[in-house]
Amino acid sequence: MGKNEKTAITPVRSEDYPEWYQQVVKESDLAEQSPVRGCMVIKPWGYALWENIQHVLDDMFKATGVKNAYFPLFIPLEFLEKEAEHVEGFAKECAVVTHHRLEKGPDGGLVPAGKLAEPLVVRPTSETIIGDSFAKWVSSYRDLPVLINQWANVVRWEMRTRIFLRTSEFLWQEGHTVHATSQEAIERTDMMLDVYEKFAQEYLAIPVIKGRKSPSERFPGAVDTMCIEAMMQDRKALQAGTSHFLGQNFAKGSEIKFQSVDESEVYAWTTSWGVSTRLIGGLIMTHGDDDGIIMPPMVASSHIVLLPIYRKPEDKVRVMEFTEALAKELRDKYYHHRRLSVDIDSREIGGARGWDWIKKGIPVRVEIGPRDIDNNSVFVARRDKKHKDKESVERDRFIDKITEILDDIQINLYNRALAYREENTIPIDDKKEFYEFYTPKNRDKPEIHGGFAMSHWCGSEECEAKIKEELKVTIRCIPIDDNLTENGKCICCNSASDKRVVFAKAY
Amino acid sequence: MGKNEKTAITPVRSEDYPEWYQQVVKESDLAEQSPVRGCMVIKPWGYALWENIQHVLDDMFKATGVKNAYFPLFIPLEFLEKEAEHVEGFAKECAVVTHHRLEKGPDGGLVPAGKLAEPLVVRPTSETIIGDSFAKWVSSYRDLPVLINQWANVVRWEMRTRIFLRTSEFLWQEGHTVHATSQEAIERTDMMLDVYEKFAQEYLAIPVIKGRKSPSERFPGAVDTMCIEAMMQDRKALQAGTSHFLGQNFAKGSEIKFQSVDESEVYAWTTSWGVSTRLIGGLIMTHGDDDGIIMPPMVASSHIVLLPIYRKPEDKVRVMEFTEALAKELRDKYYHHRRLSVDIDSREIGGARGWDWIKKGIPVRVEIGPRDIDNNSVFVARRDKKHKDKESVERDRFIDKITEILDDIQINLYNRALAYREENTIPIDDKKEFYEFYTPKNRDKPEIHGGFAMSHWCGSEECEAKIKEELKVTIRCIPIDDNLTENGKCICCNSASDKRVVFAKAY
Repeated sequence: MGKNEKTAITPVRSEDYPEWYQQVVKESDLAEQSPVRGCMVIKPWGYALWENIQHVLDDMFKATGVKNAYFPLFIPLEFLEKEAEHVEGFAKECAVVTHHRLEKGPDGGLVPAGKLAEPLVVRPTSETIIGDSFAKWVSSYRDLPVLINQWANVVRWEMRTRIFLRTSEFLWQEGHTVHATSQEAIERTDMMLDVYEKFAQEYLAIPVIKGRKSPSERFPGAVDTMCIEAMMQDRKALQAGTSHFLGQNFAKGSEIKFQSVDESEVYAWTTSWGVSTRLIGGLIMTHGDDDGIIMPPMVASSHIVLLPIYRKPEDKVRVMEFTEALAKELRDKYYHHRRLSVDIDSREIGGARGWDWIKKGIPVRVEIGPRDIDNNSVFVARRDKKHKDKESVERDRFIDKITEILDDIQINLYNRALAYREENTIPIDDKKEFYEFYTPKNRDKPEIHGGFAMSHWCGSEECEAKIKEELKVTIRCIPIDDNLTENGKCICCNSASDKRVVFAKAY
Repeated sequence: MGKNEKTAITPVRSEDYPEWYQQVVKESDLAEQSPVRGCMVIKPWGYALWENIQHVLDDMFKATGVKNAYFPLFIPLEFLEKEAEHVEGFAKECAVVTHHRLEKGPDGGLVPAGKLAEPLVVRPTSETIIGDSFAKWVSSYRDLPVLINQWANVVRWEMRTRIFLRTSEFLWQEGHTVHATSQEAIERTDMMLDVYEKFAQEYLAIPVIKGRKSPSERFPGAVDTMCIEAMMQDRKALQAGTSHFLGQNFAKGSEIKFQSVDESEVYAWTTSWGVSTRLIGGLIMTHGDDDGIIMPPMVASSHIVLLPIYRKPEDKVRVMEFTEALAKELRDKYYHHRRLSVDIDSREIGGARGWDWIKKGIPVRVEIGPRDIDNNSVFVARRDKKHKDKESVERDRFIDKITEILDDIQINLYNRALAYREENTIPIDDKKEFYEFYTPKNRDKPEIHGGFAMSHWCGSEECEAKIKEELKVTIRCIPIDDNLTENGKCICCNSASDKRVVFAKAY
């Protein structure tokens, strides 16, 4: 795109990436800041995306035997304290309910009243409150496994918030399972990580690296935290989902015990795993361009918008009739095996209308004017191509080909994102090169640095901490990929290492 | 049922109705009390019911143009105060967040820290926080109507709680709409009431009376509250859904203004409407019997359970194969136009297995043993009939007839509930008779009284308050039904009245 070409989003990515992100969220009508510190309002266009994410994931979870349930929003303080590292990890960011009433205060305004005997924490995550139920549900090996998921809101009082990526309240799913053996729990941890990988890649079109967190980056209280990591267009990493093997830590805290086959009483093994509305932030930063978000068809809030176009009032009726008939045929034809969402936008607001849908990232725009109708054709634009690359397509052919077009957009987005990640992921074995890789070339744009460095790490916390302090670069994960196993030397201290890990700056 | 016949629930309804209710919730595995005061844990079997309720309602809402969105859990105190009656109505039952951190206290335990400058209220309902967004979204008549729904958890710190019926935290949907004219807002209020009526009757199989609340029973801040009221088996009323015409009260509080066609700036007209997990309580108390809940097929957590039966180990394989093939055929055949949920329960726990499913209220149980297989038939039991009324049905005929059977159960449940309500609804014109109607015949069972009295009311708050105080009987609604318009005399003060209203004790 030429320097002077107009873009729908200002600033563009190369000028100011963080501000570009905020403007995309706003201009694409996905969400807005709320008057409550750090909390967001998810607007209908953004929420429809979340609903699609929910439906797909929910089906994938259920296919593995998981059932949904719902547990209390509030967690008694003493519950949180049942696992020492866990409470340590969350104590600094808990919203605490201390009163259950409002009363007129001395100056006439309302003040909190009815102090609770024990404060309640608004759930930052639910291991301890769900563990309390699990302890009641499980008494014999016959009761296992327990496979539960919850769709819920959670609150973590973050100091620096950023819409979708880090908000005080966010929406998520949290899976919690209980098993009779360590091995079975580990298998479940890995299985859910695979579900997340499949979902990220096949539905969100976001390529991810599967791996294990270093001990310092583990979920508080977990024995092992597995994750999927994605590269955003500013080359930072985004943790897109985590799956935790909790060992017996939470089972001991919550007294989840069962009688085994040989009648001894033993503690169970648990897992937890979650993804959140943060995925929407990742989707924006993976696929968005200088004209707004681009929605992958598999989760798009809507697939197709039909834009009737006429100048002469006498054309209105036939253009609208043609448009509505087309919408109906598209909806009906694909109702059973792939429900298409088709919008008609007949607002008479000129060119702003087309730009609205570009910014909203709808995969396919279809313009329909009198001349198109005369030719029995429609004018088709794909959001993954330049807006001027519109194509005239015979009407019935368009109906037949639409799922092919959508699939092609889906694959194109994935391939583009994968190519970008591969371009910006390099093996680095030299410490100086490593430091240069993470030093921005332009001081005004501190966010644009090298990308992912695949480098050796000796496994020591000191090396990890030193790199974090000096470069703000962290180990995103120790990838599962077996090809990375090789002898080498730690990028920081030069000691022996047997595997490359993924280093990056991160959200 | 004879006095000595065993029932799955103890006590039975006629012995102790409130305790019967608690036992059904427990034995049917729907939900349990949580350690957090007044909050419930919705277990998978109960949550599946809620998911079905959500899916149906969500489709019904969307068919009227409503879109889903999500707004913050927390409401700043000043927002709640924007509508005087509104804050007055909710101040006594608000959970208040006052701190955003936990710290080690003097005795080593954690205590709340990081006091918030202004306390935040956990939403008891969202008119004011959503109104803040609406004020930003609406500036011209072209932006109207705004039709939004939110699926969310809300908190009302109730003193006396009862699982599903009145809990400190519950799940619900709250619809919020903005309109250019009073008439349009009133039409929307009525439209959503009609949606609730249709849903209650056609899906939950609960007959309801549509009507208007008396001023004293209105939603705090509303101009008019419409409701649907159902009769439970203890003849008490349950308010099953409400739709509020809010006039310009909340628009003024939140400054929701728009430029009208003639370019003057005017306040908008708003509505709100909601149903909650309370519906599950209503469903239990409408259809449940002394063996547990009975789930109407249109929303049942699952439709059919297949129970393979064999004594000889050598029969196991063929019984299981027959069972699994049947499950597959049922699922596949009805996949597109009516997705059937089919469970197989192959636990080897004897007679307890069948009783588990009776208590859980699954509409159809199918027993499959070697002899059935020899006859190519299955043994079918319907939950709305006596458990001993099982019927042998030829296998393929069962597959063909299953939707008919489910529809028949659905209609049977509705008709039974309607007949019960009609039996226990009588017009009363005599004050003494009215008082006797609400005086329990047996002092040990204060909950068993007459039912619904259709009586005249003059419209005065005094008469309403007097009856409430003396009998704990309230006006459930002023029905929309035109047949009730007639001249008469107030049941309390004998003044002129032009319509009968529904009196009842209520949940």
